[in-house]
Amino acid sequence: MNPHQAETKIKRTANALAINTKVSVLAPGTVANLVCGFDILGMCLNEPNDLMEITLLDEKKVIIHSADGYPLPTDPAQNTAGAPLVEMINELDTPRGFEITIHKHIKPGSGIGSSAASAAGAVVAANHLLGNVFSKRDLVRFAMFGEKVASGVKHADNVAPCIYGGITLIRSIHPLDIISIPCPSLYVTIVHPQIEVRTKDARQILRKEVLLKDAIRQWGNIAGLVAGFMQGDLDLIGRSLEDVIIEPVRSILIPGFDEVKYRCKEEGALGGGISGSGPSIFMLSRDENTAIKVEKVMQEIYNRIGLEYHTHVTTINTTGVKILQD
Amino acid sequence: MNPHQAETKIKRTANALAINTKVSVLAPGTVANLVCGFDILGMCLNEPNDLMEITLLDEKKVIIHSADGYPLPTDPAQNTAGAPLVEMINELDTPRGFEITIHKHIKPGSGIGSSAASAAGAVVAANHLLGNVFSKRDLVRFAMFGEKVASGVKHADNVAPCIYGGITLIRSIHPLDIISIPCPSLYVTIVHPQIEVRTKDARQILRKEVLLKDAIRQWGNIAGLVAGFMQGDLDLIGRSLEDVIIEPVRSILIPGFDEVKYRCKEEGALGGGISGSGPSIFMLSRDENTAIKVEKVMQEIYNRIGLEYHTHVTTINTTGVKILQD
Repeated sequence: MNPHQAETKIKRTANALAINTKVSVLAPGTVANLVCGFDILGMCLNEPNDLMEITLLDEKKVIIHSADGYPLPTDPAQNTAGAPLVEMINELDTPRGFEITIHKHIKPGSGIGSSAASAAGAVVAANHLLGNVFSKRDLVRFAMFGEKVASGVKHADNVAPCIYGGITLIRSIHPLDIISIPCPSLYVTIVHPQIEVRTKDARQILRKEVLLKDAIRQWGNIAGLVAGFMQGDLDLIGRSLEDVIIEPVRSILIPGFDEVKYRCKEEGALGGGISGSGPSIFMLSRDENTAIKVEKVMQEIYNRIGLEYHTHVTTINTTGVKILQD
Repeated sequence: MNPHQAETKIKRTANALAINTKVSVLAPGTVANLVCGFDILGMCLNEPNDLMEITLLDEKKVIIHSADGYPLPTDPAQNTAGAPLVEMINELDTPRGFEITIHKHIKPGSGIGSSAASAAGAVVAANHLLGNVFSKRDLVRFAMFGEKVASGVKHADNVAPCIYGGITLIRSIHPLDIISIPCPSLYVTIVHPQIEVRTKDARQILRKEVLLKDAIRQWGNIAGLVAGFMQGDLDLIGRSLEDVIIEPVRSILIPGFDEVKYRCKEEGALGGGISGSGPSIFMLSRDENTAIKVEKVMQEIYNRIGLEYHTHVTTINTTGVKILQD
């Protein structure tokens, strides 16, 4: 028995304390791969959010409904919200299950953590109904099974910020090591051009080897970005938002990327880049006024290019998935 | 004229305020390449120190004496303390020069910043005699010319911590971007096995390309290390002190490396690795007692191997080069 299982065993007894059988949660969008922080840094957003309703069942069973008509796999193990719950109920010694209805407002394939919101929202809600028997770290561990269903890879850089809130560092996946990085209040502008970039494709175009000199520049930037967040040094954050490894390859898949980035920075944005594996692009700004000007620039560019798009102006969500009501 | 030159011009007038013509400084050893922070992170030590005496001259001239009989190049431009001063006096509009005597206590080739101490000590002392007309950033810029003389590469990860003190991040060399990283009080144990590892050789054995997955693991660790230092989280520091790229290659040049590292961690050290390009090995500990136990382990190993060595038990120097007296 590993230490993890021991931890779970102890907490199972708290299960009996749960008194509510139904809850609604808001599961927020997230930005993974924060520019130089590929695969390790993620950020939670206040908008958009999925709305999820979840009911506790007395049998070992997971039922999922879509309130928006999205086609869902009937096997819960093949569903991004279902797979984490299947893992979770397997670690309980009493038969429990969940019925979930998902109102999906974060578009699948947008690059702002749609699958992570389903996975994270489901496990936070379920844990609430169980009397919070699992730690946040456990919840990330479960939610990663949803990411595996969605993209084939058990990554945590969306589900961790979705569950912890704020900016999270995934120092390591094996063993799972999640660190919350304090950060200043920042505005986030996001544009989602309506093209399809599949996570699997975005992974496949990356080179397996990188130049050492580029890797060094990247880890200088990641160190600067973490220090900038923790010291609230907005200029340092701006200088560190540079990606010399992933962005030059992946940005080719996103029409207008270079122009969006260049002109948003001209407009006053601290910097930004590809959200997740794209196609969404995010930009950080020090104030709302700048964030709105940045949004206008994005709109103007995609209007001219003639691509459909959505934009969001929001802030960093410091608390993650929100319990709405019992 | 670039912004730098403009800055220097303005400060030249402060020159006239200097009233002292002689000063002594302690120039401390430094640990560059802090494990996962290859080429970007350096740390200043309280021991050992070079002692340097410097006199202001009324003519544009640099004279260097060694008090220990080390053979020095007669051309100041070819000397690690001289080259930075040549650069510095070229940015003054009045003819000034310096005569320096160096008492070298940091062994050249030890990997704990011997050349950097000469370069940094010289420019801090000279700037003091000039009435502090140059910024710390300027001093790093000058001191890097000393590193170029010593190793052929203008790197800053020893001279920056030597001048700023504490732990410094060199986010970028062009342009020079130095960030002080706050850190907790830690003990440092160093062993210098008396073998020669030339910086140039240590650079040449590195591969020019690295696996992306290794680079990602490295930047997860560097982000964790910076967060650990800034949050004073000793366990996180320990977990992040892992280098999957440089150490596996370079440690081959250092007899006993793996055993030193393994046994020092068993003894309670948080972690550590190669200091600079070696052959010294450093270990961080949370208290003096552990740091001394770590020293004993190092001594025992090199006694058994039969290599001559020096050890130091010291702490992080938070102020850098120290002005002793006028």
